[in-house]
Amino acid sequence: MASSPRTLRPLNRDAMIVLHHSPLDAASRTARLCLAEYGLAFELVEEKPWERRTEFLAMNPAGTVPVMVEDGVVVSGIGPILEYLDETRGPGAGSRRLLPGAPAERAEVRRLLDWFLVKMRSEVSSHLVREKVTKRFDRSGESPDTTAIRAGKANLRYHLHYIGFLMSQRSFMAGDWLTVADLAAGAELSVADYLGDVPWGEDETAKTWYARIKSRPSFRALLAEQVAGISPPQAYTDLDF
Amino acid sequence: MASSPRTLRPLNRDAMIVLHHSPLDAASRTARLCLAEYGLAFELVEEKPWERRTEFLAMNPAGTVPVMVEDGVVVSGIGPILEYLDETRGPGAGSRRLLPGAPAERAEVRRLLDWFLVKMRSEVSSHLVREKVTKRFDRSGESPDTTAIRAGKANLRYHLHYIGFLMSQRSFMAGDWLTVADLAAGAELSVADYLGDVPWGEDETAKTWYARIKSRPSFRALLAEQVAGISPPQAYTDLDF
Repeated sequence: MASSPRTLRPLNRDAMIVLHHSPLDAASRTARLCLAEYGLAFELVEEKPWERRTEFLAMNPAGTVPVMVEDGVVVSGIGPILEYLDETRGPGAGSRRLLPGAPAERAEVRRLLDWFLVKMRSEVSSHLVREKVTKRFDRSGESPDTTAIRAGKANLRYHLHYIGFLMSQRSFMAGDWLTVADLAAGAELSVADYLGDVPWGEDETAKTWYARIKSRPSFRALLAEQVAGISPPQAYTDLDF
Repeated sequence: MASSPRTLRPLNRDAMIVLHHSPLDAASRTARLCLAEYGLAFELVEEKPWERRTEFLAMNPAGTVPVMVEDGVVVSGIGPILEYLDETRGPGAGSRRLLPGAPAERAEVRRLLDWFLVKMRSEVSSHLVREKVTKRFDRSGESPDTTAIRAGKANLRYHLHYIGFLMSQRSFMAGDWLTVADLAAGAELSVADYLGDVPWGEDETAKTWYARIKSRPSFRALLAEQVAGISPPQAYTDLDF
């Protein structure tokens, strides 16, 4: 596939960290939230994975986002990025560490990361984003598949109840502390919410948890950002939705 | 989906570790290789994920294998299992540590884990196993989709060359040492090899690497095991294939 001409924002040369991302990709959003929670400055470079940009493929042959670059170290994929940040920033972060605890607790955080960023993403946001957003821009000429959109919305209901179930038993997604599992779940829900597809009325417990997560300063930049040509519903940015 | 009656092998009560697995699942095979490389004794329990066994879903609501249980700690998913073993066994393993090095090197190992266990698995072994094996046993009544089998085989060629490319530059998959990336790539290839689908003649470098990995003692139990009703080609167990 040929890559089409595009302009990158000029990089801020003072920024130590560059994150290659896609605005409505839940894994990219998780990486941004994680960087913000650790108080790290970073520069964003938007990738359109379907363009298969040569320089980007040289960094990550899988051609997927997010990819983080720091001082020449390329970290490809959301799992590797979260582990890298835990290894390089976690030990100094004290109670703000995002992958905390003993091995058993860390295993539960990682199970939930797989749940939200692999299972839920493939069952929910990947359908919604591909049909409602990507097909508008990727020049494939394909029209949205309403069956896939309906499937994504039906699956979302099930995942919303699972979040409600977990939050009826815990203070945060994986236990007593905020972890990357909360950020991943919040990121995934925020994508569906941008597209107006979350039936918030169906689970009060899940909604209350999301209101807390959405109010965190780390969420501000995400909520303020708009994708050209696609406006989110007003409640998307409303902290009291 | 109702779960059908089935018998588990009685557990060895002395075994500290139980691994719930599926014989031709590359992620399960990776977990077995990793446990064996660390010299850990473990008991296997075979799961048929399509049966959605109630006790298994209670452990891992995602219903996927592998799941490892040690002293009541449930670790679900291959990523979480590899990280758990690194955290609990890695520091004492010295040069036999399977996720070694500084954060940047560990990031490269994890990139390759995603490559082999997510990308390659979804493009190769999941097609081959679903069409050639699962459909025989899951009572869906569906017949094998030859287009999917052809796609899996075509993708395998591309992945074999990527392995050859990496091994033309490195001693092991992720650098100078054996890591979980070698075990994951070996596990994924071993599944396709069991089904007789690897075109070994197409990449000598990849073949030479696989011969080395396959000769490791950790591979023995895998190679000796047969799936009922499906015999591997003779070269599957041959160390000099």
